[in-house]
Amino acid sequence: MFANHFADRLCNAIQNKQTPLVVGIDPVVEQLPPELLTGLGNHLQLESTANAFLEFGRSIIDVVGPLVPAVKINIAYFERYHSPGVRVYRQLVRHARKAGLIVIGDVKRSDIGHTAAQYALGQLADSQFEDCDENLGPDAITVNAYLGLDGIKPFLEVAASCGKGIFALVRTSNPSATEIQEIPLAGGHPFYLHMAGLLSRWADQPGTHGFCNLGAVVGATTGHAVAELRATLPASIFLIPGIGAQGGSLEDCKPAFDSRGFGAVISASRSIIFSYRDPRYKELASADWRRAVEQATIDQKTQIGNIIPIG
Amino acid sequence: MFANHFADRLCNAIQNKQTPLVVGIDPVVEQLPPELLTGLGNHLQLESTANAFLEFGRSIIDVVGPLVPAVKINIAYFERYHSPGVRVYRQLVRHARKAGLIVIGDVKRSDIGHTAAQYALGQLADSQFEDCDENLGPDAITVNAYLGLDGIKPFLEVAASCGKGIFALVRTSNPSATEIQEIPLAGGHPFYLHMAGLLSRWADQPGTHGFCNLGAVVGATTGHAVAELRATLPASIFLIPGIGAQGGSLEDCKPAFDSRGFGAVISASRSIIFSYRDPRYKELASADWRRAVEQATIDQKTQIGNIIPIG
Repeated sequence: MFANHFADRLCNAIQNKQTPLVVGIDPVVEQLPPELLTGLGNHLQLESTANAFLEFGRSIIDVVGPLVPAVKINIAYFERYHSPGVRVYRQLVRHARKAGLIVIGDVKRSDIGHTAAQYALGQLADSQFEDCDENLGPDAITVNAYLGLDGIKPFLEVAASCGKGIFALVRTSNPSATEIQEIPLAGGHPFYLHMAGLLSRWADQPGTHGFCNLGAVVGATTGHAVAELRATLPASIFLIPGIGAQGGSLEDCKPAFDSRGFGAVISASRSIIFSYRDPRYKELASADWRRAVEQATIDQKTQIGNIIPIG
Repeated sequence: MFANHFADRLCNAIQNKQTPLVVGIDPVVEQLPPELLTGLGNHLQLESTANAFLEFGRSIIDVVGPLVPAVKINIAYFERYHSPGVRVYRQLVRHARKAGLIVIGDVKRSDIGHTAAQYALGQLADSQFEDCDENLGPDAITVNAYLGLDGIKPFLEVAASCGKGIFALVRTSNPSATEIQEIPLAGGHPFYLHMAGLLSRWADQPGTHGFCNLGAVVGATTGHAVAELRATLPASIFLIPGIGAQGGSLEDCKPAFDSRGFGAVISASRSIIFSYRDPRYKELASADWRRAVEQATIDQKTQIGNIIPIG
């Protein structure tokens, strides 16, 4: 049970690496290190761009692998390059899993019933295709719960069958989320608390560490919401984006964590993977861009650790 | 302007084909015609399964092409087969567009800002990759609006740049949609009307036929909602799933249409593409499964035409 329970595996990884920091891999061609752009020509080649993403992503994984429990790979940046991009996405999922990292596929899929099951099988399950080198799916994916239980259950079922997890969008970190997710309901609660209440009913039994495989995406820009959501979803691990670039504060995240430092992962993407473009890391990067990524990860870990220590 | 305005092109196609029926292409290997399964072995081959989907989808498009204005292709069924599936999805988009059909990519994507723009560029825009045969994207895609304007604007911008459209989920056809989309707000309205009100503010200027490029997904199982949504979103074309298999009635759809028969498209998938398995069409199918698909499309058109005539 232990080895096959997503939330337990994630908590163990957090304990091992002594940080809830997750590195987000969202490559854009304009920001790749110049050495990876050689041979890319005018950026209008699917295959060579996808291959540059593969090399970039592998390097990021190799650098951050010893430092963090998990990576989050956003498929949107790969779908931009059609099927070659999707192939590279799966190659990176495999590379990260083989490196012992927990992998969160940030795919934000949504559909119902049988169609949702196809997404769950394609995006979350490990597959067994004979002519495929990338049968390993991510350990968890993000999903959009606007369709209700019909849109969540198929993902939960596939997750349960293979010890994986899902993170449902509850309160996202973007400014305009307020006009939908914070709209007050007849009962007085904001809509996101209603969504959280539904998710708490749908959640599976918690594992050894007290957390279930149905997590929630909760933006760090919503400080007032984190504590309320923790109360409504006591057994859900929160995936918290929006630190740094989007202006969220670590203090606001604190209520998501218990005394052991479990309860949430904090995701940082651009501030780490493109740190070689940051003046603070320019000198390190001049020798090797990977040094900048490594140092930015260490610095981010330290910053988080000062506010949220792992017990 | 005319030729490049999605809603106008869709209305013209509806007029030409004299029906708002859209055929949904959602292939599953278990239901493919036996002749397409030869060489598929144990279903555990990505490439051969994807190729069977390609052959199946092309045949469907060739058969229904002269009969309907548009096809809706659900990418979930293709993502199930990883990058080869995604390649076939795009091959079918291209095949349908080359056949003169309007193509709706049912992808239900959602993200914010820069990430949503990647989805929009990858899933909606026509691209210009030099090493790609499938640069044509669909004419419109479905999107999930739970993230608010930040999650819709990037799609609208890409759509505006290339005469394409989006359909945002408003009131879906599944039973559990009630617990989220129909939840009453403090003002007394159900949540889906709030969502519709936001979308009406975000919509672009209507084209020649009076409709804009921001459409809405409205389930046919929600009869009471169609008229309200028509009033709130007067210029949005509705994409109505749920006829047939999901129990929606055509009478309930009527308020979506104006006197010309414009205003919505009605999507049917399994009842048409797998009609050769239906006892009513078995005899036709015994000669050629495509005959069953053709007749089921004609029958569905007649049924819709009896209730919703095109002016």
